[in-house]
Amino acid sequence: MELLDKLKWRYAAKAMNGKKIPQEKVDRILEAARLAPTSSGLQPFEIFVITNQEIKEKIKPVAWNQSVITDCSHLLVFAAWDTYTEERINYMFDLTNEIRGFKNEGWENYRQMLLSSYPQKDPEENFNHAAKQAYIAFSQAIAAAAFEGVDATPIEGFDPDAVDKILGLREKGLRSAVLLPLGYRQEDQDWLVNLVKVRKPTEDLVTVIE
Amino acid sequence: MELLDKLKWRYAAKAMNGKKIPQEKVDRILEAARLAPTSSGLQPFEIFVITNQEIKEKIKPVAWNQSVITDCSHLLVFAAWDTYTEERINYMFDLTNEIRGFKNEGWENYRQMLLSSYPQKDPEENFNHAAKQAYIAFSQAIAAAAFEGVDATPIEGFDPDAVDKILGLREKGLRSAVLLPLGYRQEDQDWLVNLVKVRKPTEDLVTVIE
Repeated sequence: MELLDKLKWRYAAKAMNGKKIPQEKVDRILEAARLAPTSSGLQPFEIFVITNQEIKEKIKPVAWNQSVITDCSHLLVFAAWDTYTEERINYMFDLTNEIRGFKNEGWENYRQMLLSSYPQKDPEENFNHAAKQAYIAFSQAIAAAAFEGVDATPIEGFDPDAVDKILGLREKGLRSAVLLPLGYRQEDQDWLVNLVKVRKPTEDLVTVIE
Repeated sequence: MELLDKLKWRYAAKAMNGKKIPQEKVDRILEAARLAPTSSGLQPFEIFVITNQEIKEKIKPVAWNQSVITDCSHLLVFAAWDTYTEERINYMFDLTNEIRGFKNEGWENYRQMLLSSYPQKDPEENFNHAAKQAYIAFSQAIAAAAFEGVDATPIEGFDPDAVDKILGLREKGLRSAVLLPLGYRQEDQDWLVNLVKVRKPTEDLVTVIE
């Protein structure tokens, strides 16, 4: 399967060469993230696409000084909702009704169920749930980047509070969840590029219950 | 891009017809999950592949009686580590050394850093982190299923404690994170199949910082 070939090709590039990715490739990577499924279809996150070099320079020191932060072409920041609110839930249900052109009783009951549960929960629990949805999109962006022959380095190693501050995320009701620099590998400076990909053998990962 | 066409084709099937998926397709979907990147490469989860009908019948009532649980071909249960332990971290670092055929000082220092942080953290925090990694693999399995023309229904709506009990997960140091029934859509019983896919418009999802 072509997808498996691409997933084998990809790795977390540790050095990038600063070359710009064509816009249409970036657009398709973002489109894959946009199409990702999420819980109740709420898409409880936003994606910040940073090409501004000054902002990248500010983020680098709060992300273990990883060179890919500044040497990437586009730095994606996946920022999850800090909590679920009535307004956010209603936005998505209203959008659905608008796009589909009708209201449906079952769907409206489901809206009420979500409205009567999510907004009352602990914001930290809600953020964790929203962040998981962001990871689904993040993962599809990684697969899409591989499809485009674009390197992508998944990064959890950063100070989320500091990134929130740099991007003004808290004021928007968002919290940074994970970073994804996109760019092109700089092979002669990348210690990882020539090392064998390591994954658990299938028998340690998968249990079949027949 | 072919991947985008597949992601547009896919949807969360609400009814499946019980038809079996060829084993080679299931294998490739699991391989996509196995290849997914995870934090520090730890792959802190396992995947249970359930074809046993009795077990599926037991899970159905603790998953809102969703028919796809029993009418799917293969029910995937993504179960994350309940916490990070020294043994689990060492397994992955030892495996890496074995596969790559050498020890590396930087890599060993990194092992020590993880050993001195993860196992001391709150297990709930560790489980949440591990679950996010499971979501990355889960997402790649969804994309791979779409590639195979196989329907997949992401399910968070279930009682994790009950599923843990049915599968004996806690004794294995695991907790169920998310379900993915794989199978084939039963169009005449699926209220969702003919409805338009709804996603936030790009301008509500993506902010470019140039």
